[in-house]
Amino acid sequence: MQNEEPIKDANELLEKLENLHPSDIAYSLRKIENESVDDFFYVLKTIPDELLGEVLLELPDNLREAAYTELSIQRLTDAVDLLESDDATDIIQEIEEIDIEKAKEIYDGLEEEDKKDIEWLKRYEEDEAGAYMQTELFSAKLNETVGESIQRLKTAKANDELINIHQVFVVNEEKSLIASISLEDLIIFDFDKTYEEILNQADEFKYKPFKVSDNTHIDEVAKQVEQYDLNVVAVVGYQDMLMGRITSDDILDVIEQNATEQMYQLAGVNEGFEHEDNLITTAKKRAIWLFLNLGTAILASLVIGLFDQTIQAYVALAILMPIVASMGGNAGTQTLAVMVRQLALGDIELENAKDAVKKEVFISLVNGLLFAIIMGIIAWIWFDEKLLGLVIALSMVVNLFSAGFFGASIPLVLKKFNIDPAVGSTVLLTTVTDIVGFFSFLMLAKVILL
Amino acid sequence: MQNEEPIKDANELLEKLENLHPSDIAYSLRKIENESVDDFFYVLKTIPDELLGEVLLELPDNLREAAYTELSIQRLTDAVDLLESDDATDIIQEIEEIDIEKAKEIYDGLEEEDKKDIEWLKRYEEDEAGAYMQTELFSAKLNETVGESIQRLKTAKANDELINIHQVFVVNEEKSLIASISLEDLIIFDFDKTYEEILNQADEFKYKPFKVSDNTHIDEVAKQVEQYDLNVVAVVGYQDMLMGRITSDDILDVIEQNATEQMYQLAGVNEGFEHEDNLITTAKKRAIWLFLNLGTAILASLVIGLFDQTIQAYVALAILMPIVASMGGNAGTQTLAVMVRQLALGDIELENAKDAVKKEVFISLVNGLLFAIIMGIIAWIWFDEKLLGLVIALSMVVNLFSAGFFGASIPLVLKKFNIDPAVGSTVLLTTVTDIVGFFSFLMLAKVILL
Repeated sequence: MQNEEPIKDANELLEKLENLHPSDIAYSLRKIENESVDDFFYVLKTIPDELLGEVLLELPDNLREAAYTELSIQRLTDAVDLLESDDATDIIQEIEEIDIEKAKEIYDGLEEEDKKDIEWLKRYEEDEAGAYMQTELFSAKLNETVGESIQRLKTAKANDELINIHQVFVVNEEKSLIASISLEDLIIFDFDKTYEEILNQADEFKYKPFKVSDNTHIDEVAKQVEQYDLNVVAVVGYQDMLMGRITSDDILDVIEQNATEQMYQLAGVNEGFEHEDNLITTAKKRAIWLFLNLGTAILASLVIGLFDQTIQAYVALAILMPIVASMGGNAGTQTLAVMVRQLALGDIELENAKDAVKKEVFISLVNGLLFAIIMGIIAWIWFDEKLLGLVIALSMVVNLFSAGFFGASIPLVLKKFNIDPAVGSTVLLTTVTDIVGFFSFLMLAKVILL
Repeated sequence: MQNEEPIKDANELLEKLENLHPSDIAYSLRKIENESVDDFFYVLKTIPDELLGEVLLELPDNLREAAYTELSIQRLTDAVDLLESDDATDIIQEIEEIDIEKAKEIYDGLEEEDKKDIEWLKRYEEDEAGAYMQTELFSAKLNETVGESIQRLKTAKANDELINIHQVFVVNEEKSLIASISLEDLIIFDFDKTYEEILNQADEFKYKPFKVSDNTHIDEVAKQVEQYDLNVVAVVGYQDMLMGRITSDDILDVIEQNATEQMYQLAGVNEGFEHEDNLITTAKKRAIWLFLNLGTAILASLVIGLFDQTIQAYVALAILMPIVASMGGNAGTQTLAVMVRQLALGDIELENAKDAVKKEVFISLVNGLLFAIIMGIIAWIWFDEKLLGLVIALSMVVNLFSAGFFGASIPLVLKKFNIDPAVGSTVLLTTVTDIVGFFSFLMLAKVILL
């Protein structure tokens, strides 16, 4: 069984290394580092090259950075040399951010072919498919026999050059991707046949490869992997030239990361700055959102200020007014979360957006009426004033309606303008529900009560 | 390239069916249904059996239910018969919810072996690994040669009984799972060797299978798949008997679903009731959370009520008081989102929780001081009253501090009591930030200003 208790003793961990998955080693190292930083570095310096790179990749950012500083150029070079191209590139780029000289020396120590791959992969923006692809893959030419290609696979595997192979990518003379044949099909073929023969006999669409262009946005790649239940996507460049592949484990991380970002954005948190060592930086980034919220809150206060005499005449209004704003804010948040998420998942699209808005408005009206009655009666009894109950009831309907309408519309409008619907929509919505909440309540009170 | 424009014409779609992925057919069907329900049923009734089941699975819930009602027992039986066991079970169970008689007749029409599988899979709770596994897999016995097993794979694939095969699961005489060998290794072996010979020559841990027990919670399975970058997990029962496998595409859905649930829970939305056809049901479920929030808001109002004379004397207090509560609520929401998400991802655990709380308290104090200064000056100038600035500044520090402290602690306490930290934590936090916000502001005002 996996997921055993972490090993907290440095020497015990080193002894058991070979039975452990790099992810488990990294987990144990986190525990060891908690107890003693020296032990942490001792293990890192002692574990074999073929594990070091994989373990580094599984460590949290701050520990990985510490390791980059502490480990020698030679050790880092050996570790990077054994990684797949995408991971090697990530590590080199991370070291560059800390110590550009060290990164350069490590890079210089790599094999020529690895250098070329890394140079190429570094060109991509971090959200492009190319930045996620590994260049190591199993490909075959049309005129090759299955047996010949398997012989190459055997050699590559013996040299630890290829792992995680699920299919052979068939390319033509120009290296354009023609077909993708999964190993489950390959293994039952006649090994003496050429790929050309196999493809000619097969149904045209049977081995059609799933592919994306190297500059495709990674979120789009993730959508395709999800939609078509893929294990691997081929990445192609100019004229469909096969460049690399992206595996589902990378996509899983992308999906998890995107969900985190969305949750954070709705809460006014900038995901990218949450793992900073310097807490002041994290605090600053959060302060930006709080600052926007302060603006909203002051606007709401200005609205209240318009009715200062009404409040002075009826102090019950000051007591009750946060209820209306709070209920509107909450109902709006419900709608917002549903809209943002369903837009992200593709369950709602701009075309059928009208139905979604109608649905949300209907729900908010139903609940507006429900809570109008409840809160109307409570206010009436509490302050023994029937009209006050009427004021809060009417205001509840108005505010929950606008919460539903704007909670549904704001993300759609943002999306229409190609802005991420999760970003800023909470602040915009709060502005609406606060202002509508306070204004409707106090205005109705002024008209009805005074 | 995938993801072409959806085909909106029924006959055109039927013509091009064989070139399309079931997921694309389902997408086109959604568009067709938007235009004409008749055309939607026409396509469904006409597409071949081997596609029907897969297409049904990709349709949104409401369209799938419509299809269950409209399609004949014979068509549904033929479609279910061709699905993998886990999908077949899902469909049978969904039809049971609509029409138990129809479900029974479909079940009766299936092959004996499928019936047994479905009966077995139906036993599992919906969040158990067993409910997600498919029983179709490629296994081999120890004394079998690789070649013999591949011959069986060939037959099974020719009969369309197996797809998506990535490894062979090796079992002993008692059907206990011994090893998992990926096809990339298998394909380069000597096909005349038995599995026993191969395993005896290999390193003890090389083919150690990743496995979970059939009653493992699916979230735990998802965690392992993520942690170890797996494509497939074996599911075992009593004495490690091999029962089925779970593939990474199912795990991807689990992860996406969990993220959605978490976002919804934080916003007070019950994910399970968001896709109801009956909007009143959705409204009711959301009303429960709004009701809890109303309780919180009334508590906050009671606190304000304690200071009615103070407010009457100083109406500026009524104008400013929502600012303190709003800032506290927002800062708390930031902390809450970070804590809930990092607890879910395993980045924060109960052991290192103290550090996380410290971090959040530090950040909230920094921002508390920042906004105390900003808001203190604004209030001072706005109402030309130095002491009012002091009151709101002090109150801002108190409230942002408690927002950070409780925003970090509430999810941890919930987790400690084995309650999902996302559920209810928003309402609990709002209660704290509202009450602390209003009380600290009005109490300080009473003491300092009057």
